[in-house]
Amino acid sequence: MNPPAFEPRHPGFDTRTRESFARQAAMRTLGATLASVAPGRVTIELPWSEPLTQQHGFLHAGMVATALDSACGYAGFTLMAEEAAVLTIEFKINLLAPARGERFRMVGTVIKPGRTVTVCEGHAYALEGGREKLIATMGCTLMAVVGRDNIQG
Amino acid sequence: MNPPAFEPRHPGFDTRTRESFARQAAMRTLGATLASVAPGRVTIELPWSEPLTQQHGFLHAGMVATALDSACGYAGFTLMAEEAAVLTIEFKINLLAPARGERFRMVGTVIKPGRTVTVCEGHAYALEGGREKLIATMGCTLMAVVGRDNIQG
Amino acid sequence: MNPPAFEPRHPGFDTRTRESFARQAAMRTLGATLASVAPGRVTIELPWSEPLTQQHGFLHAGMVATALDSACGYAGFTLMAEEAAVLTIEFKINLLAPARGERFRMVGTVIKPGRTVTVCEGHAYALEGGREKLIATMGCTLMAVVGRDNIQG
Amino acid sequence: MNPPAFEPRHPGFDTRTRESFARQAAMRTLGATLASVAPGRVTIELPWSEPLTQQHGFLHAGMVATALDSACGYAGFTLMAEEAAVLTIEFKINLLAPARGERFRMVGTVIKPGRTVTVCEGHAYALEGGREKLIATMGCTLMAVVGRDNIQG
Repeated sequence: MNPPAFEPRHPGFDTRTRESFARQAAMRTLGATLASVAPGRVTIELPWSEPLTQQHGFLHAGMVATALDSACGYAGFTLMAEEAAVLTIEFKINLLAPARGERFRMVGTVIKPGRTVTVCEGHAYALEGGREKLIATMGCTLMAVVGRDNIQG
Repeated sequence: MNPPAFEPRHPGFDTRTRESFARQAAMRTLGATLASVAPGRVTIELPWSEPLTQQHGFLHAGMVATALDSACGYAGFTLMAEEAAVLTIEFKINLLAPARGERFRMVGTVIKPGRTVTVCEGHAYALEGGREKLIATMGCTLMAVVGRDNIQG
Repeated sequence: MNPPAFEPRHPGFDTRTRESFARQAAMRTLGATLASVAPGRVTIELPWSEPLTQQHGFLHAGMVATALDSACGYAGFTLMAEEAAVLTIEFKINLLAPARGERFRMVGTVIKPGRTVTVCEGHAYALEGGREKLIATMGCTLMAVVGRDNIQG
Repeated sequence: MNPPAFEPRHPGFDTRTRESFARQAAMRTLGATLASVAPGRVTIELPWSEPLTQQHGFLHAGMVATALDSACGYAGFTLMAEEAAVLTIEFKINLLAPARGERFRMVGTVIKPGRTVTVCEGHAYALEGGREKLIATMGCTLMAVVGRDNIQG
């Protein structure tokens, strides 16, 4: 996976992304942190934790999706105009293996930026004993929203 | 939306579904409860709560997906063999409107049961002031898993 | 499946849809015809034909998707502004059963119209000996495009 | 995109894939040829042709999907057991740009092989004047089917 080569539209992309992430209460519920922010790519990490599990003790597919959706959404957000907010139109996730591990790394990457619609892909990895395993992939479509009350950042 | 007309494979489908749901710690994190269990259809409800929100104060798309995935997964589970466990292979969610509301109702419905692979659809509704609004739809593919250690129910 | 209750934006929605369909060479290759056009719902029909099959003699999943995508696309198109063209952003299809039958009916229905983004669902049925069987479902996101050269209707 | 490193299950994977492809009448309708077959990766190519177009003269999204689905399906097929047939359970396609070009290259890659369920991703490229442009991505789930009458190869 090579780094994408995108130009941000404004210098504040890093600060704006971190500020918006800090306002996502769901990320605190996940125990997730922003591991890296680059134009067109964002990485989020979280530890395994019992409150996020399904009936077999793995991370719930939806919790994996929650972190991946944020990674994709913020990857797209880094390339949006300064006044834009980001909303997810749709995503699809394929669960390749049960989400067992000590920690999880979610990588969101823009594959097609656009003024209105942006397409991203996400990869989720389980980390255990120094090894990394791909456990899920996501395809995600985002919308840049401008000028709607109550929807900023 | 008419009720699906499916026959469960064993009389314990209701009890097994409720027991498995009770083991999903993620459902407690969501504050979600099992509102109804029928062969091929399961409804889950949850209140709006701040720890589940994204940056604009709506439920995070991934949290909507988490509840919808459980609704779909358990809808499929009601029609599986007694010894089977259920895993999600993939799902896709379309977010039709921001997830604002007092409560949310997630309905999972089997559209094609199968010995190995089951296909479901999910509908998420926001409830506010006595009104109900469709906010998301899901298409979901499940797998019945038999005889794998650590994966039961 | 109840008919959706949508208002078209302009009286020419029926004529514009039929004219655009007539320009889709791919529909002639499929032997497909426009069976009905209503605001927010379009039905396309086609016979089984050998040039559309995969290796087992069923309609190729992609050919089912081609007809379903047009049904969804035109369902959305009926609700778009007069000057808009329609492009598919993405779709997902679940194949529920092999596409065997004498004829096939594809129904596209708008579930969320929008100024820019419209979401539809599609249902594909195989018809044989007077019976109808659901063989595929689609979730589809469309974009209304205005003012781009070479993209009209 | 690095080549996947998968071992085929039997030496006849190449011959079986080519024979099955030759039986897909839909590939002849597309004018598609099998450009390469490797364990876990298959490439299909086709020229632009008018009978495959939508109303703006681009390849119809469904025709792009037809070729991509075959590329993904056969990528999975190369890793399946000798007696297995392959069926598509579901796929999702994101259309990143209109399908204009002289020729098109569809690359299907296995990302998770399995005894029953295999997950692939597909990338579609438009070729024009020596340049190559990514126009669509696909996520695809396949099923290996054994011992069903009328479904072989």
